[in-house]
Amino acid sequence: MSYLDQIQTPEDLRKLSVEELPTLCQELRRFIIEQTAEHPGHLGSSLGVVELTVALHYVFDTPNDKLVWDVGHQAYCHKILTGRKDQFSTNRCYGGISGFPRREESEYDAFGTGHSSTSISAVLGMAMAAKLNGDKERNHIAVIGDGAIGGGMAFEAMNQAAYRDVNMLVILNDNKISIDQSTGAMSKYLLTLTASPAYNRFKNRVWNLFTFKSKSSNAITRFFSKMGNGLKGYLLGGSNWFQSLGYRYFGPADGHDVIYLVKTLRSLKQLPGLQLLHVITVKGKGLEMAEQNQTTYHAPGKFDPETGQIIKPETGDQPPKYQDVFGHTLLEIARQDEKVVGITPAMATGCSMTIMDAEFPERVFDVGIAEQHAVTLAAGMVTDGLTVFCNIYSSFLQRGYDQVIHDVALQKLPVIFCIDRAGLVGEDGATHQGAFDLAFLRSVPDLIISSPRNEHELRNLMWTAYHNARAKGLPFVIRYPRGRGVLLDWRNEPQVLPIGKSELLQEGEKMLVLTLGPLANQVSKAIQMVEADGIHPALLDVRYLKPLDEAMLHELAQRYPVWMTVEDGTEKGGLFSAVAEFLETNQLNNIRLEHIALPDRFISHGDIPSLYKEVGFDVEHIADKMRQLG
Amino acid sequence: MSYLDQIQTPEDLRKLSVEELPTLCQELRRFIIEQTAEHPGHLGSSLGVVELTVALHYVFDTPNDKLVWDVGHQAYCHKILTGRKDQFSTNRCYGGISGFPRREESEYDAFGTGHSSTSISAVLGMAMAAKLNGDKERNHIAVIGDGAIGGGMAFEAMNQAAYRDVNMLVILNDNKISIDQSTGAMSKYLLTLTASPAYNRFKNRVWNLFTFKSKSSNAITRFFSKMGNGLKGYLLGGSNWFQSLGYRYFGPADGHDVIYLVKTLRSLKQLPGLQLLHVITVKGKGLEMAEQNQTTYHAPGKFDPETGQIIKPETGDQPPKYQDVFGHTLLEIARQDEKVVGITPAMATGCSMTIMDAEFPERVFDVGIAEQHAVTLAAGMVTDGLTVFCNIYSSFLQRGYDQVIHDVALQKLPVIFCIDRAGLVGEDGATHQGAFDLAFLRSVPDLIISSPRNEHELRNLMWTAYHNARAKGLPFVIRYPRGRGVLLDWRNEPQVLPIGKSELLQEGEKMLVLTLGPLANQVSKAIQMVEADGIHPALLDVRYLKPLDEAMLHELAQRYPVWMTVEDGTEKGGLFSAVAEFLETNQLNNIRLEHIALPDRFISHGDIPSLYKEVGFDVEHIADKMRQLG
Repeated sequence: MSYLDQIQTPEDLRKLSVEELPTLCQELRRFIIEQTAEHPGHLGSSLGVVELTVALHYVFDTPNDKLVWDVGHQAYCHKILTGRKDQFSTNRCYGGISGFPRREESEYDAFGTGHSSTSISAVLGMAMAAKLNGDKERNHIAVIGDGAIGGGMAFEAMNQAAYRDVNMLVILNDNKISIDQSTGAMSKYLLTLTASPAYNRFKNRVWNLFTFKSKSSNAITRFFSKMGNGLKGYLLGGSNWFQSLGYRYFGPADGHDVIYLVKTLRSLKQLPGLQLLHVITVKGKGLEMAEQNQTTYHAPGKFDPETGQIIKPETGDQPPKYQDVFGHTLLEIARQDEKVVGITPAMATGCSMTIMDAEFPERVFDVGIAEQHAVTLAAGMVTDGLTVFCNIYSSFLQRGYDQVIHDVALQKLPVIFCIDRAGLVGEDGATHQGAFDLAFLRSVPDLIISSPRNEHELRNLMWTAYHNARAKGLPFVIRYPRGRGVLLDWRNEPQVLPIGKSELLQEGEKMLVLTLGPLANQVSKAIQMVEADGIHPALLDVRYLKPLDEAMLHELAQRYPVWMTVEDGTEKGGLFSAVAEFLETNQLNNIRLEHIALPDRFISHGDIPSLYKEVGFDVEHIADKMRQLG
Repeated sequence: MSYLDQIQTPEDLRKLSVEELPTLCQELRRFIIEQTAEHPGHLGSSLGVVELTVALHYVFDTPNDKLVWDVGHQAYCHKILTGRKDQFSTNRCYGGISGFPRREESEYDAFGTGHSSTSISAVLGMAMAAKLNGDKERNHIAVIGDGAIGGGMAFEAMNQAAYRDVNMLVILNDNKISIDQSTGAMSKYLLTLTASPAYNRFKNRVWNLFTFKSKSSNAITRFFSKMGNGLKGYLLGGSNWFQSLGYRYFGPADGHDVIYLVKTLRSLKQLPGLQLLHVITVKGKGLEMAEQNQTTYHAPGKFDPETGQIIKPETGDQPPKYQDVFGHTLLEIARQDEKVVGITPAMATGCSMTIMDAEFPERVFDVGIAEQHAVTLAAGMVTDGLTVFCNIYSSFLQRGYDQVIHDVALQKLPVIFCIDRAGLVGEDGATHQGAFDLAFLRSVPDLIISSPRNEHELRNLMWTAYHNARAKGLPFVIRYPRGRGVLLDWRNEPQVLPIGKSELLQEGEKMLVLTLGPLANQVSKAIQMVEADGIHPALLDVRYLKPLDEAMLHELAQRYPVWMTVEDGTEKGGLFSAVAEFLETNQLNNIRLEHIALPDRFISHGDIPSLYKEVGFDVEHIADKMRQLG
């Protein structure tokens, strides 16, 4: 019987001796590799924190002590050790456990995560609450990566936490890579810190000193703490970012030496107050191919658990991913015009801006996890005559909302926003569904908001947005989903489309379906399906949520008394609302309006077909609805 | 003839000798005091940067060189020197110049501001554009305060800018205070920096060395730059935050010595690359009462230009400000329950959380300019059983949108958001109008969204939200406007209201007006006005935008065939949309729906009566609309 088999909760883990932990770590790593090989997920980051996770649950009294994983895709080992080993094969599956910590899933998940850089704020809140409650013993730990700590929100929290008299340990999990290579000063700074030979020489001596201190021996602690900091400042050659913010900085520590980590964490547990432990880990640790190709193995899909070789499903020719159509089309535009640049916050691979980057690296800017900055940087560049394609995932644009309003729209700067992962994203679940962008963008004045129904349209809209920007038009949003399009022959000769004009794809009788984006393809299939029932809906690709093609709507209102909107976004504020407003404003009371949209609740994780069924985006449901209305 | 009279643009300024600048500064300061005494505005911060502004325009080639003022309320001197002296008496008035830089107002306003912490991103965008355009000479300057630099967005930009080969100068205008006292590590750190005696001793020697370097002498520059940094690191005792991020740090410099500033900026202009100049200024400089009461004199209203004495208009008894009703009611609740805490991002005075702070300082947390952190900190505290009132202005909540969705609503944590400055705010203008909150919040699942029509209702809703939070209900939003309420006798015995229930204030005939928030009072007056015309609208205070009181709406649909929504928010996505969706979803096609709401464009600055007229919130317009429908 393996150690892992004996562990249901951290209570069981704590019964092992320290010397047994390295073997447990091997078993855990093997378990994660085998499970993730079959049930795809975030492999690399979870392999990187096996030892850290074991050490944390071994040393701290979870769930009483509070542990929050920033982003949370590295929490597989945490889930396995906290009662979810047997369900782990359902990870990210419809109805299964989430790929991220979720409060509703386990009392060990102290705070749900998914988006980056939230952990320090959340943990600080808990630590401040403990202080108000008079609890001086409870520990509060945030584990945050070197990419996430560059997010502005993490800085806000670090800044406020400092000098507060709270029990809080920030563990900086430094693997030198977020999804793409980390960028920016913080990343360079961490490199300097870890490379300092003088520091590393003295490290062990410092740690030995620590082990004799405890929370009760305050005078000694204070003395030591002061001395420690001074020593470190000196050894690091005069500049410790964390210390300048008032943190007691410890590290760098080898994040794959579990015995050492246990010793270190035990020492830190004795110390009161605010601490930062800098841990060095290797993303993909223990699977050679993952260590060597960290971006690919961030979330590799299925692979061979022995060799790491990625298993590509044999599916024959497939339509391209929308992100690749974006990438190739951006490159085409960039080739024609040297004033075209790309900006993305840490999503260069995910949005395929890497395609342009390979040819024009000087014109592609991955700004790291920094959505707010990305938007306003784009605005600044546009004031100077550049044409900027700014690619941000839908759910991450929620972080740049104020900047879209205040820096872009208010100044009518024609930034081109390409919003990838719009609509349902599938396995990443509730935190990542692109459910709200249509609604929250539509209320912003002076934005053009569009969505392509297929790859040709995406290319047309990108060229349209480009021409609009050159002509100093309004800011232009193009939102499109995760995953593949519908056309094998996707590389059309792009057309510049008129702004605010819809396209009537198909005439019909009585019923008009209005779609925005690729759900038009589902609707088309449903229309074919109901023809046998003598129902012949017309199909309008609205194309632009804003400005809405009111002329066309007025015309169609003469002919079609039953309307149905279909959109891959919330029913509160998007296309349905826009059309409802239009009908009411124009007193078109003879028209009946139905809608298919995301319901007004958070949608959990799962494969797209299951989620489509759940929310009624499947062809059968759309057809049923047509039959009801027909 | 004064120097100031001779200056229309910075061209004229540059004709003066350096020795004449101190006198000009005196004149400018006097001009700002006299103008602002009569035409209220942001006094303190503008007085603080008189010398800095003169020195910048004197040394740099604006508008070719790009200068961006973070937040922008300190840009009065900038406006006066760049062609807007004669219009300055219209500052913040309806139809007059804006209180913030605006690109549409002047070519010297390189980037519009209003919200905090955007300047470094914008200027970096310009600097990167210049580099792509092959322009190595142009200079790019961001002036940012010590409060604003703590905003996460500024950090994101600082982080990305570092190590980039761009011509950029960040001027940190350090006056130790944002609106309220700055908080956090950054603030403490800056204090340490400026207080270092060793550093100050060596300062002059360092500056003298600089004056001999130029952009062309690269080797010397590099040598010097390296030496300079090492020296400073040493002198500062081992920890320079800016240097750890890769900035060349210069300062601290006396921000009120204009001749010294000119010398300094000339030296820095010679140096290529990225620099940070730390300038110490006094908020309110030159008006004694303003220097001594910096929070009060941030925006003091009318005052005596000689003594600084604030002139309180004699208006007799007035209803209280909504913010004070919030403040007093929060204190009442906090007295009853020690688990109640308050959080606000740098708005403790503006939202009157200072009232609770005076009695329970340990339970009030001003987190500085950090909206994202404020929201998630609140969420973290709520997980631990605290009841959190988080007060954020409507337009600033745009910065915390993702956190409301991802950290609060998704986890159903009953944070209580009190959204002050919702709806039109008046003189602060387009950047600060609370136009979008109803729309962007309504699309978020599991939020309760309410707005009180008067002071009693605000108190009722706060108590309702409190009880809801204790009972682990859903997150609760209460939005209310800037300015005064309508009741002299405002301190009622608060009632806990049922959630999602509207209140029919008045029955009528044929027409139903649905209001949300204090515009109900305008509508009441309009109803009285049209009675003479035989028109008798009913009035429903919707009270909760979400959940909408559908039972009541169904009932009223039986009796009233003409509906009109009235709301102080955008017409795209708020109450009008909610009611339009309701009518369409329920096929209530016999009802005609009209609306009064903010139009789908940005609304500029001005006094509230003028703005109300512009958008049709004045009683006459509402009455006219009733007559049309009647």
